[in-house]
Amino acid sequence: MARLSGWEMAATGQPLRPVDRELPAPGPDEALVRVEGCGVCHTDLGFLHEGVRTRHALPLILGHEISGYVEDAGRNLAHLVGQAVVVPAVLPCGECALCRSGRSTICRSQVMPGNDRDGGFATRALLPGRFLCPVPGANGNPDAPLGRARGLTLRHLAVVADAVSTAYQAVRRSGAGPGCLAVVVGLGGVGTFAAQLAAEAGAAVVGLDVDPRRLDAAGSLKVGLALDPRACSPRELRGRIADFGKDAGVPEAGRVILECSGTPAGQQTAWSLLGYGATLMVVGYTMEETPLRLSNLMAFDARALGNWGCAPELYPELVEKVLAGSVDVVSHTKLAPLSSIESVLESVRARREDRRIVLVPGEEAA
Amino acid sequence: MARLSGWEMAATGQPLRPVDRELPAPGPDEALVRVEGCGVCHTDLGFLHEGVRTRHALPLILGHEISGYVEDAGRNLAHLVGQAVVVPAVLPCGECALCRSGRSTICRSQVMPGNDRDGGFATRALLPGRFLCPVPGANGNPDAPLGRARGLTLRHLAVVADAVSTAYQAVRRSGAGPGCLAVVVGLGGVGTFAAQLAAEAGAAVVGLDVDPRRLDAAGSLKVGLALDPRACSPRELRGRIADFGKDAGVPEAGRVILECSGTPAGQQTAWSLLGYGATLMVVGYTMEETPLRLSNLMAFDARALGNWGCAPELYPELVEKVLAGSVDVVSHTKLAPLSSIESVLESVRARREDRRIVLVPGEEAA
Repeated sequence: MARLSGWEMAATGQPLRPVDRELPAPGPDEALVRVEGCGVCHTDLGFLHEGVRTRHALPLILGHEISGYVEDAGRNLAHLVGQAVVVPAVLPCGECALCRSGRSTICRSQVMPGNDRDGGFATRALLPGRFLCPVPGANGNPDAPLGRARGLTLRHLAVVADAVSTAYQAVRRSGAGPGCLAVVVGLGGVGTFAAQLAAEAGAAVVGLDVDPRRLDAAGSLKVGLALDPRACSPRELRGRIADFGKDAGVPEAGRVILECSGTPAGQQTAWSLLGYGATLMVVGYTMEETPLRLSNLMAFDARALGNWGCAPELYPELVEKVLAGSVDVVSHTKLAPLSSIESVLESVRARREDRRIVLVPGEEAA
Repeated sequence: MARLSGWEMAATGQPLRPVDRELPAPGPDEALVRVEGCGVCHTDLGFLHEGVRTRHALPLILGHEISGYVEDAGRNLAHLVGQAVVVPAVLPCGECALCRSGRSTICRSQVMPGNDRDGGFATRALLPGRFLCPVPGANGNPDAPLGRARGLTLRHLAVVADAVSTAYQAVRRSGAGPGCLAVVVGLGGVGTFAAQLAAEAGAAVVGLDVDPRRLDAAGSLKVGLALDPRACSPRELRGRIADFGKDAGVPEAGRVILECSGTPAGQQTAWSLLGYGATLMVVGYTMEETPLRLSNLMAFDARALGNWGCAPELYPELVEKVLAGSVDVVSHTKLAPLSSIESVLESVRARREDRRIVLVPGEEAA
């Protein structure tokens, strides 16, 4: 009988508590994943501190950004055993009318680890196995080098489960590509990847953030212009971005804005950058309301598209990009022991971290 | 030399003033249209009273909802002379990169009568002629019956120039169709047509308005459920709409919301109806800001699409629908003499009119 050790959330605002328990055998379509890395996302802090409710009742093990190995699987997924995988943060059922019509991100039977059932802040997780994304070239050692990107291991790929893949779907949906200006608002856990992926798609990229460390590092994200939106008036901001677009030879119309900050201030900045035919991708999350002139969408014939997770079918091509080094994950990721989860969560909450933290099970692992 | 008589706006908040002047001969791509009807739109009141600025400097003849006859045309459009036409409210250039890529509604050289140049509150208008939409079956009498719809004349078709066509493009873009729930917020000048067109496309339609006269008349718009959103709590409203959808056999996910009220209250109601995979069409206009939880787009994987005007290529099929009686224009339109423009504008502003007013030149016409 497999066991897990981990940390569970019992109530809003309370410290996590250690948990150690037996796991049932996988059902026919389930896989038991040995967690090698689990990223810490702002969504986890939303559950823990901001009153965002988990869909499964508490107590619950949080964490939805998982990479690892399939240790055991149900009879329909026996071929997965031993496979290194990235676990998509949103696992649709694959069977309902929405899934069959290509709208799997709104599948009402979807399972998000650490929200609909126990997640990855633990040594193991029992999950729907159908859409786990195999990692080509991985061997049994989670610390072995992977692909062509220096320092990349299976543990780092945890962030592909949500931060990188959410950015990827958002960039794809936005239509950002050659001859397009893309403005990324918030160069944090998701924005760092959105900027790289927009540039990789061929767009000229502007990055906005209020943190000078992030602005200094923006060059490595292939950001052509990095600005603190508080350092100038909204009008000046629009002017500087327009000038950058002119220099880059991209048209004013059809701009893409990727709101990744998940803050009211970031949302207002993003909204103020709407222009003719613009596409605003709403990627970050905040429960707060923001005063907006909604009619600007009409006046500019523009659109605002929400982006929830990433459809599983996009993961294999994205993992290829990461393995090929087209998207730099290593520089934006820091590994930390799962046993340090409490101090890590505090540090992320205080915005002291400039990288995405991946928690790595150590002594807890059996 | 042709002349026009009409009414021009000289300054915000000031009465219109009568104008009578000569018109130059049409340029090679221009057409001189004898106005037979010009609809009054809330946009005109925005210019007149709410500080919305016209793109052309004042003084300017307002009015962008024109039907009439081509009296004269430049050398490239000689075939149009004598033709009965509807004038699309947004006339793109047809040549620029945006037009060529199917984004003509954001063409930066677009001409909107009564905004970019003199419009239809006059006996004649000189306009770009390329995209005027011919009206099949019209003879030289603007009061002759047209098509199969009882009471329909060329004058009534003025409202197709903007109110009906804007609703049409919005419904098409929204994807509303069979098996879909469409909620129309605001059953006014545009909403009456949005409701009919959503039903004509196959959707089950809910109509929301705060005016009891409009709710009473909603049945004729093929609205299956008509509600005053102020008469119940937001939660009850969502519940009643969900129950209606269940009875109609349409799924919860993928709902369409058409915001046609152009009021902050209507926008908040529309936003509160967002659900999984929903599409909110922002059709109405207000300069006011509204507090919104923008992240709901992300949480619901939903989208908000602005809709500016209607691409000219959609007009011929829409005119066919109106002539065939699939969309009832006559019941929602009232003809009034152009000479009564001042009292008409007052009456529309005071929301006393329950129909779209079409101003008809009479004694002014030479």
